[in-house]
Order: sequence, then structure tokens, then C-alpha cells
Amino acid sequence: MFFASDNTSGVPDSILSALAQANSGYASGYGTDAFMGQVRARIRALFEAPEAEVFLVTTGSAANALALASYCPPWGAVYCHALAHIEVDECGAPEFYTGGAKLTHVAGNSGKMEPQALREALAQAGRGVVHNVQPGILSLTNLTECGTRYSVSEISELAAIAKSHGLPVHMDGARFANALVAEGCSPADMSWRAGVDVLSLGGTKNGLMGVEAVILFDPARAWEFQLRRKRGGHLWSKHRYLSAQMAAWLEDDLWLDLARNANAMAARLETGLEGCAELLFDRGGNMLFAKWPSGLHRQLQVAGAEYFLWPDHQNLDGPDDLPISARLVCSWNTQPSDVDNFVQWINKQV
Amino acid sequence: MFFASDNTSGVPDSILSALAQANSGYASGYGTDAFMGQVRARIRALFEAPEAEVFLVTTGSAANALALASYCPPWGAVYCHALAHIEVDECGAPEFYTGGAKLTHVAGNSGKMEPQALREALAQAGRGVVHNVQPGILSLTNLTECGTRYSVSEISELAAIAKSHGLPVHMDGARFANALVAEGCSPADMSWRAGVDVLSLGGTKNGLMGVEAVILFDPARAWEFQLRRKRGGHLWSKHRYLSAQMAAWLEDDLWLDLARNANAMAARLETGLEGCAELLFDRGGNMLFAKWPSGLHRQLQVAGAEYFLWPDHQNLDGPDDLPISARLVCSWNTQPSDVDNFVQWINKQV
Amino acid sequence: MFFASDNTSGVPDSILSALAQANSGYASGYGTDAFMGQVRARIRALFEAPEAEVFLVTTGSAANALALASYCPPWGAVYCHALAHIEVDECGAPEFYTGGAKLTHVAGNSGKMEPQALREALAQAGRGVVHNVQPGILSLTNLTECGTRYSVSEISELAAIAKSHGLPVHMDGARFANALVAEGCSPADMSWRAGVDVLSLGGTKNGLMGVEAVILFDPARAWEFQLRRKRGGHLWSKHRYLSAQMAAWLEDDLWLDLARNANAMAARLETGLEGCAELLFDRGGNMLFAKWPSGLHRQLQVAGAEYFLWPDHQNLDGPDDLPISARLVCSWNTQPSDVDNFVQWINKQV
Amino acid sequence: MFFASDNTSGVPDSILSALAQANSGYASGYGTDAFMGQVRARIRALFEAPEAEVFLVTTGSAANALALASYCPPWGAVYCHALAHIEVDECGAPEFYTGGAKLTHVAGNSGKMEPQALREALAQAGRGVVHNVQPGILSLTNLTECGTRYSVSEISELAAIAKSHGLPVHMDGARFANALVAEGCSPADMSWRAGVDVLSLGGTKNGLMGVEAVILFDPARAWEFQLRRKRGGHLWSKHRYLSAQMAAWLEDDLWLDLARNANAMAARLETGLEGCAELLFDRGGNMLFAKWPSGLHRQLQVAGAEYFLWPDHQNLDGPDDLPISARLVCSWNTQPSDVDNFVQWINKQV
Repeated sequence: MFFASDNTSGVPDSILSALAQANSGYASGYGTDAFMGQVRARIRALFEAPEAEVFLVTTGSAANALALASYCPPWGAVYCHALAHIEVDECGAPEFYTGGAKLTHVAGNSGKMEPQALREALAQAGRGVVHNVQPGILSLTNLTECGTRYSVSEISELAAIAKSHGLPVHMDGARFANALVAEGCSPADMSWRAGVDVLSLGGTKNGLMGVEAVILFDPARAWEFQLRRKRGGHLWSKHRYLSAQMAAWLEDDLWLDLARNANAMAARLETGLEGCAELLFDRGGNMLFAKWPSGLHRQLQVAGAEYFLWPDHQNLDGPDDLPISARLVCSWNTQPSDVDNFVQWINKQV
Repeated sequence: MFFASDNTSGVPDSILSALAQANSGYASGYGTDAFMGQVRARIRALFEAPEAEVFLVTTGSAANALALASYCPPWGAVYCHALAHIEVDECGAPEFYTGGAKLTHVAGNSGKMEPQALREALAQAGRGVVHNVQPGILSLTNLTECGTRYSVSEISELAAIAKSHGLPVHMDGARFANALVAEGCSPADMSWRAGVDVLSLGGTKNGLMGVEAVILFDPARAWEFQLRRKRGGHLWSKHRYLSAQMAAWLEDDLWLDLARNANAMAARLETGLEGCAELLFDRGGNMLFAKWPSGLHRQLQVAGAEYFLWPDHQNLDGPDDLPISARLVCSWNTQPSDVDNFVQWINKQV
Repeated sequence: MFFASDNTSGVPDSILSALAQANSGYASGYGTDAFMGQVRARIRALFEAPEAEVFLVTTGSAANALALASYCPPWGAVYCHALAHIEVDECGAPEFYTGGAKLTHVAGNSGKMEPQALREALAQAGRGVVHNVQPGILSLTNLTECGTRYSVSEISELAAIAKSHGLPVHMDGARFANALVAEGCSPADMSWRAGVDVLSLGGTKNGLMGVEAVILFDPARAWEFQLRRKRGGHLWSKHRYLSAQMAAWLEDDLWLDLARNANAMAARLETGLEGCAELLFDRGGNMLFAKWPSGLHRQLQVAGAEYFLWPDHQNLDGPDDLPISARLVCSWNTQPSDVDNFVQWINKQV
Repeated sequence: MFFASDNTSGVPDSILSALAQANSGYASGYGTDAFMGQVRARIRALFEAPEAEVFLVTTGSAANALALASYCPPWGAVYCHALAHIEVDECGAPEFYTGGAKLTHVAGNSGKMEPQALREALAQAGRGVVHNVQPGILSLTNLTECGTRYSVSEISELAAIAKSHGLPVHMDGARFANALVAEGCSPADMSWRAGVDVLSLGGTKNGLMGVEAVILFDPARAWEFQLRRKRGGHLWSKHRYLSAQMAAWLEDDLWLDLARNANAMAARLETGLEGCAELLFDRGGNMLFAKWPSGLHRQLQVAGAEYFLWPDHQNLDGPDDLPISARLVCSWNTQPSDVDNFVQWINKQV
């Protein structure tokens, strides 16, 4: 009954094997290893982007903050949702890496920006007024922090608004693979073809130890990105251990298979809970949110169930029927039995 | 004939096994995993420092820059040798993390600061003068970039000078293990007992994939360090893959055995080269520097020998007898036969 | 009919005379001049704060950003109103000086924070959670950007909430003098006695050329403040020209007299407009906001009236009866006739 | 006998008059005042640079740091002399404004870089090597901190070296006027025609209260500069008080006349001291350095003479015949009698 996060899971055996294989012999460092060549070629092919540049780092915060810093000046506004990971969960990494850019909220339900809200935010921005921070970049998260999903056309619409104001577009794709298989489109459709300039492609939440790719569809900022990565302490000397993981992950669509399992398990969980809990938001992939009484929550905890409350700071001191809301995340290795046990357990109590 | 760097080597099998073991099941993230408990306890015991705080990051640049930033304000001077890694090889990571501290050179031969030079630098610093950056921190590297070693008494002398001016002391210990086994002292002797407040303890160059421990002997800055680490994008969600490696590395003195091999191979190389090349600097551990004709260098390259020239930018376009200087690094898995082949090859040419 | 801003006015003759007097002879620089001694002594006496430290800079943005940076770490949240000058009008100066702190909005009508909103913001802040920026500082503006005024008891209540969470309190007092004479209390009552730790005391909007005092009621951060000021390029060599102005301004309560005139003129304007325009917000000092048709606005502009629309980005392209809102600011040298002409002119049209 | 600095002097009466004139009436702020138009036009004409952009700030540190930040990225090296004001006397302002660029010393006697040293520094820079900071900008100071002067051809040679490596060139012209009248060339000759891209044109040391112009000969970075200035808290609301001063200073070559007096007085002082003191460095303008016994120094201090020792930290505790070195600066209002009294006084003692 582990639904705490997709990053509490381990990695598939094939990733361990890839590490073992990569371990033999000497290898040149800092991204010049042979595996990185494979990763670059594979991502270019998968994304139909032969000129894209690809760089690896080990955390989503690093991927996002470095991507934003490479495209947004210190006096820029980063347009994001108020619930965005970059705003809430990175302890100010974007501000640190950009040199003080201002994260600016764009409203919308269920973690998704409303196009009209973005239009208004940009209309009100004092472009050309020296007293105001200047429009800098649009940052979308897909899947969102509410587990919802931007469709390709929604991304395109938001990106088009940004571009009409001259802004580049970043996508925090910590759960890009989950969004992709749910949407059933091509990687290109969900990224550059929809207007995304730079993508944080998450591996860690989907079966890697700590590997994220940053894809720059336009290579113009690649050198700047590399200097920022080094300067941030994110360039690995023994880089092969990152690229070997990602090469194995991309091979034979492993990354998509892993995401498909996570999504399928979330669907199974959703079905199982429909009768006995209020579900929040439209599930876009491998995450769902449910409401149940805090009494039930306490029983679940005793029984060893693991999940986070969302938002974080809910009052648990009330009577047993006070509702709380729970975030339930399935991962690449969630098993049907995990889901079924949890559902049965809940159904028994309710 | 691979002497390029200790970070072109792989990792011992026991590290791979540790990763495989750590992989099973779910684990809580962000440093709260069980392996991290072991690492902390083991380092406290090894260093006889029951209150020390320990944090893991994945690169030496991150370890150094975060350590410096936690102890030196933006307007501080970081006293270091002109050849220090933090000055030369980190693309300004210390400046980035500290918010613009000034790396200030302290002279000395063979990569080691002269105590008198440090005294003078501190005497000339405009402490209390608002126009000048203020003395901030002393940063020593052991082993140094010249492969030399500070003895315990040399560290103590320099640290005492720093402390007499109220400065904390950082040690870049990317090759701390090599220095330690060469010096034959205890970890405490080479660190806090000699006056070191914060140590970057390198694992990557000595058999890990990308794991460095930062040890704060005084835990007062631990929370600040953690926030800086997170904000720098260096807090791993699947942290167990770092701590499991380091736990295995510390077990049964593996880390010391690995360093001992590297040092022994360097000693063997030194002995082998003594007759046929000019050796530079006093070897302190696993690195040596040799001078030979650029003609020989070209032949060695053709034969597949790998090492770096040092300093980086030497003229190779001259006649064959123009001398160049080479940096030769042995690692935890350098074999006697590697050394012997290289030595024989050179002896044949000379 | 000049109501654009209190900083479009000049300075009283006595300030020019003070500059002329200060000009004779040589003077030691960087804040060691004799006038600065007078300023310090006078402010300590006026504020009944014998240990306070006082420093001069030349813009409100510099005063605010340096004050915030001296009390809030890079990973801190600065709690402020969404309309605060530090959020809207300083192009990210607070983010720049603090090294990337996050300005966090606290809701409330008319530019004033609601105590309950502050309580909630602090309750939701993830203090001790490494993923979140940490509560850093509370920043209040008095007069607010809506021209309203925090009473002494309102300041005390908000400051007490902040302090119960261990936060220091900053006040942006660009119009402190206007608030003070309107409130009719002592400088101490409106600052440290109400819980303010550091005050930006504005001179520029109230009759000086470009002089702001930062008052640190607790001198513990004074040296850090001075280093930050120097490093920000805000330490004047010919400092006497700042301190002489401020000494003259503080003499014989000139600063209060200037503010009294500005407030009185705003009161007169308010009375005059009451019959013919909708007034927004409760006037707290020398600023008021009125709504009238855009047709009238266009006529006023033709007639040479100067004021800003507020908020900045209003649609002026609609029909004549579309309402717009105007910000009207009176200054130390606004004359009754200025007010009366403006009021008469409007009354004629309506 | 005041030779402490050119910034301990006041300002000419014409500057006070300019302030009084500028004081009447309302004026629009933030650099849109009429005086600023005059300043811009005048500087464009004087420098024969019709497209140059001109911005005012109030300190030399701000001018330099903003200029450097607008042309050098955070990962750039700023090539400067070890004695440069930006390195020694600005408490790290360049590091702060650039976001952590590295000031890199270029050797040379008497405060002037040797072309060969610059060539070597650039040859050794690891351009294209991600581990190293990248060549960023060349910064020259004229007059130098040793009171020497770069000739036009020397500037051209150094700038050409920089440009052959793709680097822009900054000049710290805190004493540009003194250098200019001494060199007897046109402003264009000493700046853009010699390869300078951005000039800090100092007014404060030459008769203004605190006004420096930054001249961007290529306007491409003008908007970025303005945002950085605002964000640094250096954009004045009542900007007329800066531009009115500078307009008056540029009128009828006042700035050159003031510099001519300072230089002439320094020449007179040099002549007077030739017989009785060892003079250091070649005097380039209004500053000279002399060596005399510390006994004499103590007598001079008692007699009220004011000058700084240079370098700052000299031992004064030795016997009377221990030599010290003094920095003597003449200003726009140094009088022949000041010089003559000082010289006579010294001659009496020797």
C-alpha cells in the first residue's frame, strides 16, 4: 500500500544491469562517454529533433532551474501556476539559478493555467517599463501537480500566447512520460511542435536512480547551459553512470512501458475508489487525489498505508468524520495486488 | 596505460552490489533512508566526532561550493592557492554559490600555501574597512592539485593562522583518503583536530559513481547547508542510491584500501620512472608529475597512453626534444601490470 | 494641477541652503562627515532609540532592498502585500539584493494586509521543510500604495504575528512622515515600539533630492548592512551632500511640516472632489484615488493636469463614460490654489 | 595641505547654481527630465558618437559594476590589474552585479597592464573548456590607481588584443577628464576609437556631488543596462538633480577646466617635491606618490597635512627614518598656495 510518491520506488533490473555494463574499463568523463552519444541520438530520433541538444542532471530541481536560467534573465518573470513544483517545492532553486527572477502566478483550476489568465497576466506586465520585471518565460508542468494533464492543444494554445509576446516556453516534464502515454501522442507533439523550447524530461520518477534530461530544441543556448550546469556543480565526472541509465531507459521504449504501468495502476485505483471516496481533479496519468474522513486516514496509517496529504498542512486533530484529502501516486512497479489490497481495505472500513 | 584521472575508473563490484541491495522495496527519500543513518553513524565514529553532521552530494564542485557558501558571506575572501580546484576547475561554482565571494590567492610552491604568505595576506586584508572584501574562510586542498600533501602539522599551522583571524577552515578532500593513508594518521587528526571546520570528503575519485560527503564538524550551520543543498538542486529524492554507495565504501575500511592501492601504484610508477624522466613535486599520494620530450609524448599517445598535460595549455608544436610535463594519476583499480607496461614502454624509447 | 507624484516636486530652499553650506572646505568621505553625526544623533533622539544605527542611501528601492537583504536569507519568504512597492515597482531589486528571496503575497483590502491572512500564510509556510522557502521577514508599507494608513495598533498586531513566528519586521516608510503626522503619534510608536526592526525612512518624496535613511533599531546587523551598501554601490564618497540635506530636513521638524502640508492639501482635494467623483480607499495621508469618466480624463489631460492612472494598465479606448481611476498625490509644495483650480475645473465639466 | 583625495573637495559654485535652477517647478522623473536630454546630446557631440547611450548613477562603484554586468556573464573573467579599483576598493561590487564573475589579474608595472601579460592571460584561459570561467571583458582604468596614464596607443593595443579574442572593453574613467587633458586628445580618441565599448565617466572626483555617466557606445545593451540600474536601486526618481549637475559640468568645457587645474597643481607639487622626496611612478595627471621618512610623516600629520598612505597597510611603528609612501591627490580646487605651503613645510624639515 505504497502510494507516497513515484520516487520512493526503486529501479528496474535492466537499469542495474546497465550500470554494471557501464562499469567495465576506463571511460572519459564529463559527458563525453559513449553512452551519452547513444542518449543524444535516441532522443533526437524520438523527438524528431535532429538539432536538439541534450544534457543530463540528477534532480528535477536542477533540470528546471538550469533550464529557466538559460532562457530567462534575472529581471524576468517566470509565468507559472501557483501550485507548480518550481514555485512550491524547490526552495527557491529557480530564483537562485536565474539570479532572482520573479515567479508569477497564472490562475487556473486543477493545476492548469487558464489561457485567459495568461493573456491577462501578460497584458498587465509592464513590458518596456523599467520599474517592472519583464516578461521572461512561460513554464508549464505536465502532468501537473494535481495529476491533471494538459492536452497537446492546450499546450499549443498557451505556448502560442507566450510566443505572441516573444516568450520562450519551458515544460517541467517530471512526469512527461506519464502524460505522453496517456495523451497517446508523439514526443514531438507534446513538446516542440506545441511550442516548447526547453523540456525537463524526468527519469527519476519513472524508474531511474536520479537522472533527468534537459532537451534544448534550439541549440543556441547549449553552451550557456553547459556552463551553468558546471557552475551549479551538476556536471558529473563519471558521467557514464547517468547516460548508461538513460540509454537503457530509452531502449525498446522501456520508459513508455514503465509509465504505462504506472498509469494503468492509477486507473485501477481510481476505479476501485470510485464507490467509496470522493475523487478530486481529472486524472491525467499516474496520480489521483481522494477525500476521506480523517478517522479512516488514521486507520490507514496504522495499517501501513503510505501516501501524502495534499495540500501538506491539513488539520488532523478534528473529529473522525472531518474530511482530509490524500495524494495517491502509482509508479512503474506498483502491482495490481497493491492496488487491490488498498481498495479492499478501504471498502471494508467504509 | 590509463593515467588520465582517478575519475575515469569505474567502481568496485561491492559498490554495484550495494546498489542492487538498496534497490529492493520502497524507501523514503531526501536523505531519510536507512543507509544514510549508517553513513552518518559511521562517519561520526571514524572521525571521532559524535556531533558532526554529514550530507551527501554528487560532485566535488557541489561539495566545495556548498561548504564555502555555508561559511563565507558574499563579501568574504576565500583564501586558497592559485592552483586550487575551486579557483581553476569549477567554472566559478564558489562564486555562484556564495553570491560573489572573492577567491584570493595565497602563494606557495607545489600547490601548498606558505604559512608566511597566509599571514601576509591576512595582515593586508582590510578587515573592518568597508571598501574591501572581508576575510572569509581558508580553503586547503589535500592532496593538492600538484599531488603533494599537507602534513597534519602543516594543516594545523595554517588553520591556526586562520583561526587567529577568526576564520573558519574548509578542506577540499577530493583525495582525502589518499592523503590520509599516506600520512598514516587518523581522520580526526587530518581534519577537525587540525582545525578543519568543514570537509569535502571525496568518494568519486576513490571508487564511487558520484558521491561526496560534506562533514560539518560543528552542526550549527547544518540547516543552512541543507537549504542551500536543496536550493542548488543537489538533494536527491532517491537518496538511498547515494547513501548505499557510501555505506559500502566506508564498511570494513574499503575506502582506505582503495586509496592504498592507488598510492601504491603511484609509488611503483614513481620508482619506475625515476631513471628515465624528471619528476616534479614531492609525491603525496596517488598522483605524480613528470617531464619528458614532446616527441616521446606523441609516441605515447599513438601507443594509447592516456594522461593529461599539466598545466593544460602547453605548446606541442615544437621540436621533438621540447619538454612537456604530464600528470599521471593512479586509481583504486590501477594494476601493477598497467604501471609496468607503461614504464617498460617508456624505457624502450628513451 | 500637478498631482503625478510627490517626487516630481523640487526641494525647499532650506535644503538648497544646506547644500551650499555643506559645500565649503574639505570633508572626509563615506559617511564620516560631521553632518552625518548630527543626523544620527537627531534620529536617535526623535525615535527615542539611543542605540539605533542610521545609514543613508539615495533611493527607496536601495533602502528597501538593502534592509530586506540584511534581515532575510536567500531562501527566505518576504511577506508583503501584492501591491507593495517592493513587489511591483522595483524591478526585482529585493530579489537581487537578497540573492533570490521569494516575495509572498498576503491578502487584504486597500493595500493593507489582513492579520488573518498573515496568520494563514505563516501557518501554511513549511517551516523546517527543506523543500520550501522559509519564512523570512514581514514587510509593511506605510502609507500604503493605496494611500491608506496602518494605525499603530494595526502595525503592532501584524508585527506581533510575525514575531510569534520569529520573523523580523521591515517597514517601507517612503511616506512615513505623512503617515506619522496623520496618525499623530511619535516616531517610536509607529516603528520599534510597534515591532518594526528596520525602517526605510523616506526623504525623497517629502522634500529631499534623493536621500533615504535606513534605521536599524537593533544595531547587530549594522556592519553587514554597511558592507551590503558598499557592495551595492550605494556608499557615497562625498557623503556630506546626503547628510547635510537630511540634517536640515530633520531640523526644527521641517520634515513634519512638509508632510503636514501634503496631507492638508490632500484633505482639501478630497473635500473638493467629494461631490463630483467617486473616491476609492480611505485616505491615510497625502494620496487619494478617484474614479471619473475617461472623457473627463482626456479633457483633464488636454488642460495640463498631471496624475497617473492606477492601476497602470487601463483601457482608455472606450466611450467617454467608461470610468477610469486616477491616483492624485499632493506634495510638500502643493498650494491651495493648485487644488482649488483642479477642483473647479472638474466641477465645471461635470 | 589637503591631498587626501579628489573626493574630499566640494563642488564649484556653478554646480550649486545648476541645482538651484533645476529646482523650480515640477519635473518628470527617472531620467526623462529636460536636463538629461542636454546631457545625452552633449556627450554624443563631445564623443562624436551620435548613437551612444548615456546613463547616470551616483557612485563610481555603481558605474563600474553595472557596466561590467551588462557586458560580462556570471561565468566570465574580468581581466584587470591587481591594483584596479574594481578589484580592491569596491567590496566585491563587480562580483555582486555580475552574479559572480571572476576578476583576473593582468600583470604590469605602475598600475598599467603589460600587453604581453594580457596576451598570456588570454592564451591560458580555457575558452571552450567548461571547467574554466570564460574570457569575459577587459577593464582598464585611466588614470590608473598609481596615477599613471595609458596613452591612446597603449589603450588601443590592449583593446585590440581583447578584441582579437572577442572581448568587449570597459574603461573605469573615474579620472577620465584628468587623463584626457593630460593626453591632449579628443574624448573619442581615448574611448571608442581606441576600442572602448563602455566607459564609466567620472564626475564625482572632478567637481560633482555624486554623478557618474556610463556611456555605452553601442546602444545594443542599453535596455539591459537600464533594467540592471533600476534593479540595483540606482535609478533616481528626482533625476533632474543628477542631470542638471552634469549638464553644467559639461557646459563650456567646465569639466576639462577643472581637470586642468587638478593636473597643474599636481605638476606644481611634483616640481616642488623633486628636490626633497623620492617620487614613485610617472605622474599621468592629478595624483602623485612620494616616499619620505615616517618621522616626517608624523610631523606632517601633526601639522594638519592630509593624505593617505599607499598601500594602506604600512608599518608606522618603526624608527623615524623608516620610509613610508604617500599618495597625494590634487583636485579641481587645489590652490597654488596649498601646494606651496606644503612644499615649503617639507623643505623646512628636510
